[in-house]
Amino acid sequence: MKYTEMSREQLQTELAHHKAEYAAHQSRGLKINATRGKPNAEQLALADALLTLPSTHIASDSTDVRNYGGADGLPEMKQLFADLLGVTPQEVIVGGNASLNMMFDCIATLILSGVWQRGQKFLCPAPGYDRHFAICEYFGLEMLTIPMTPDGPDMDIAERLAADPNVVGMWCVPVFSNPQGYTYSDETIRRLAAMPVANAAFALLWDNAYAIHHFKGVRPQPLNILRECERVGNACRPIIFTSFSKISYAGSGVVAMASCVENLNFFRKRINVQTIGPDKINQLRHVEFFRDVAGIQAHMDKHAAILRPKFERAYTLLSERLTQTNAEWTTPDGGYFLSVEVPGCAKRIYALCREAGLEITEAGAAYPYGKDPLDANLRFGPSFLRQDEIDPAMDVLCSAINVAAIEQVLG
Amino acid sequence: MKYTEMSREQLQTELAHHKAEYAAHQSRGLKINATRGKPNAEQLALADALLTLPSTHIASDSTDVRNYGGADGLPEMKQLFADLLGVTPQEVIVGGNASLNMMFDCIATLILSGVWQRGQKFLCPAPGYDRHFAICEYFGLEMLTIPMTPDGPDMDIAERLAADPNVVGMWCVPVFSNPQGYTYSDETIRRLAAMPVANAAFALLWDNAYAIHHFKGVRPQPLNILRECERVGNACRPIIFTSFSKISYAGSGVVAMASCVENLNFFRKRINVQTIGPDKINQLRHVEFFRDVAGIQAHMDKHAAILRPKFERAYTLLSERLTQTNAEWTTPDGGYFLSVEVPGCAKRIYALCREAGLEITEAGAAYPYGKDPLDANLRFGPSFLRQDEIDPAMDVLCSAINVAAIEQVLG
Repeated sequence: MKYTEMSREQLQTELAHHKAEYAAHQSRGLKINATRGKPNAEQLALADALLTLPSTHIASDSTDVRNYGGADGLPEMKQLFADLLGVTPQEVIVGGNASLNMMFDCIATLILSGVWQRGQKFLCPAPGYDRHFAICEYFGLEMLTIPMTPDGPDMDIAERLAADPNVVGMWCVPVFSNPQGYTYSDETIRRLAAMPVANAAFALLWDNAYAIHHFKGVRPQPLNILRECERVGNACRPIIFTSFSKISYAGSGVVAMASCVENLNFFRKRINVQTIGPDKINQLRHVEFFRDVAGIQAHMDKHAAILRPKFERAYTLLSERLTQTNAEWTTPDGGYFLSVEVPGCAKRIYALCREAGLEITEAGAAYPYGKDPLDANLRFGPSFLRQDEIDPAMDVLCSAINVAAIEQVLG
Repeated sequence: MKYTEMSREQLQTELAHHKAEYAAHQSRGLKINATRGKPNAEQLALADALLTLPSTHIASDSTDVRNYGGADGLPEMKQLFADLLGVTPQEVIVGGNASLNMMFDCIATLILSGVWQRGQKFLCPAPGYDRHFAICEYFGLEMLTIPMTPDGPDMDIAERLAADPNVVGMWCVPVFSNPQGYTYSDETIRRLAAMPVANAAFALLWDNAYAIHHFKGVRPQPLNILRECERVGNACRPIIFTSFSKISYAGSGVVAMASCVENLNFFRKRINVQTIGPDKINQLRHVEFFRDVAGIQAHMDKHAAILRPKFERAYTLLSERLTQTNAEWTTPDGGYFLSVEVPGCAKRIYALCREAGLEITEAGAAYPYGKDPLDANLRFGPSFLRQDEIDPAMDVLCSAINVAAIEQVLG
């Protein structure tokens, strides 16, 4: 029976029961951090051969990677990113160790050059990635929230908002979105590519952070946004970002952006003043270790084998223990997060988890300005936990959700 | 006898002789690139143990360096930079692989936050580093040239210009300056620290790129700019940058900035939005290889042993072959460049070198906007050349200087 169908007396009994359970979990003195999508040590160790690579310091074009130069990236690294993203090497610029840094710098360039202006507006499908929203806030770009659906952002709303000439861009995490794990449908991608926009400088910031981060053996094959945009005459609309941070090492990977050559040349004007070039040794290290897309995919299958049991156990416990609540959650086949919706209860649940030693992402963080309009979304990153930490963490989370849900009905 | 003391007939004879020499050098079909201060392969190989480090992935504070986090840098890396710069770890933020990138980002932050504004002015000791000037140009900061002296920038002029409230900063390369190899005197540093400025946001951008890059065994011991500024009540005036690029690998080193804590906190507001942190594996790799300042100094002595004969041979050839010209040059004990002054002839000499297969830095590049007012300065980077390339390169350079000098007198 759902809590909403119970008498006050029944609810009081349930509350006492779940509070006692919660108190029992709390007394264990847990210290579990599930706030971020961090790989765990077992995943990181998969790439430890990198620590003694590269075995050579000469790249395919005879570049000595130990010396200056190569702002665009080594040819073999550009090729690998091109193959991974389904674009040409001419459409790729290799960056440093953080795609976030590349996104930030791109927006900084657009603002500094006056192409975009502070006070203009940005479309933010939400729940979404808090660090995307922090960048918008830093640059004074007003964020407009667009609801997410299992097919991607609500395109009716996106299309309506893009008709405003002050709307200059949109964040997109097209595969295994953060935090819900949704992958954009072909229809969504076609509509994003063809969407009439009032501002000619409108850009899709296409953060392909989880492009190959499945954990159930099924690799999503979304439409190629660059080719779709090209096909409908909006070739320069998307700026794609991707990263090895959750493939090799988090923070010591290699990242890249891909876009039309015209866009890349625009950004190169800044890059060529800003730096002499990214770390080419780390590029060669990665190319030597992964070799090609097949090598990356084989590596990701090993990640999947580690992640899958954690997610599956979490899904099982959620479905067993939240039957009486109106909580909803997604069960994606990839990505890095559990996303649970409990309208009106997220802040309370976050606080209860915290008090019992379970850190989850702060309530509201997945929304622009940290404001979840329904106070519903909870984000939980199981990846960093050991398998044996999943049960105690879910014990706390589920108890907290039950307690909050009952309290809510009791009013 | 100097060319200026010769008859036209004598000059014609000399010109024919040097032109014949030049033609002979040209016919060798040289291809030598001495445009930049690049380490050579022999220097780079000194650090090749780095290619198979680190031997651990756990830092001194138990951080797993393979995972996210640590925007400020590992404690041991901060300590090493602090020791190197004579500051405290609290005054250090570790960056990525390029100090130029840190400088660019600092200026971008100051402009984006409105602390500095486009159209304001920047003091540029010249000849100086072309990439510093390119950053000013990118951000629309008007550059005011200050002549360099063997003691550093001409401080009378600097002090006069700093009285303009639109002057917001100044580039400084305090040790083995690029290109002349001058080191700022204690008097210059004291005056820079105490200089009255009209703009409260005035900053010294202190690029300590060659702090320990001696090649004759003598390490300059300039006054500590941070402590000097603090002593006279201008604690937040300097922003210091330094880099391992010419210590370990060019472009795969580790860099840092140092400043007062208030300044660092200002920049952290941007850094914490821009990135999740720099490459900590590369930090651990460097700490493991160099260990401490003594380890770095011992390593730099090995660089010195490679560089010294190149510079000494070049100095010898210049002094033997340019006796009849009014060319002047510096003979520093460190740094990366030969800097030769031949007023009125730099562009012609650059062109002659180029036509004979010797690339030197483009004439004018060491001045703001690429405009050398006296068309005098030539920059030549001997480091990247093999020892056996120094003679043929200097053959071309000296012949070109002689030809141009005679042509100039002939009018």
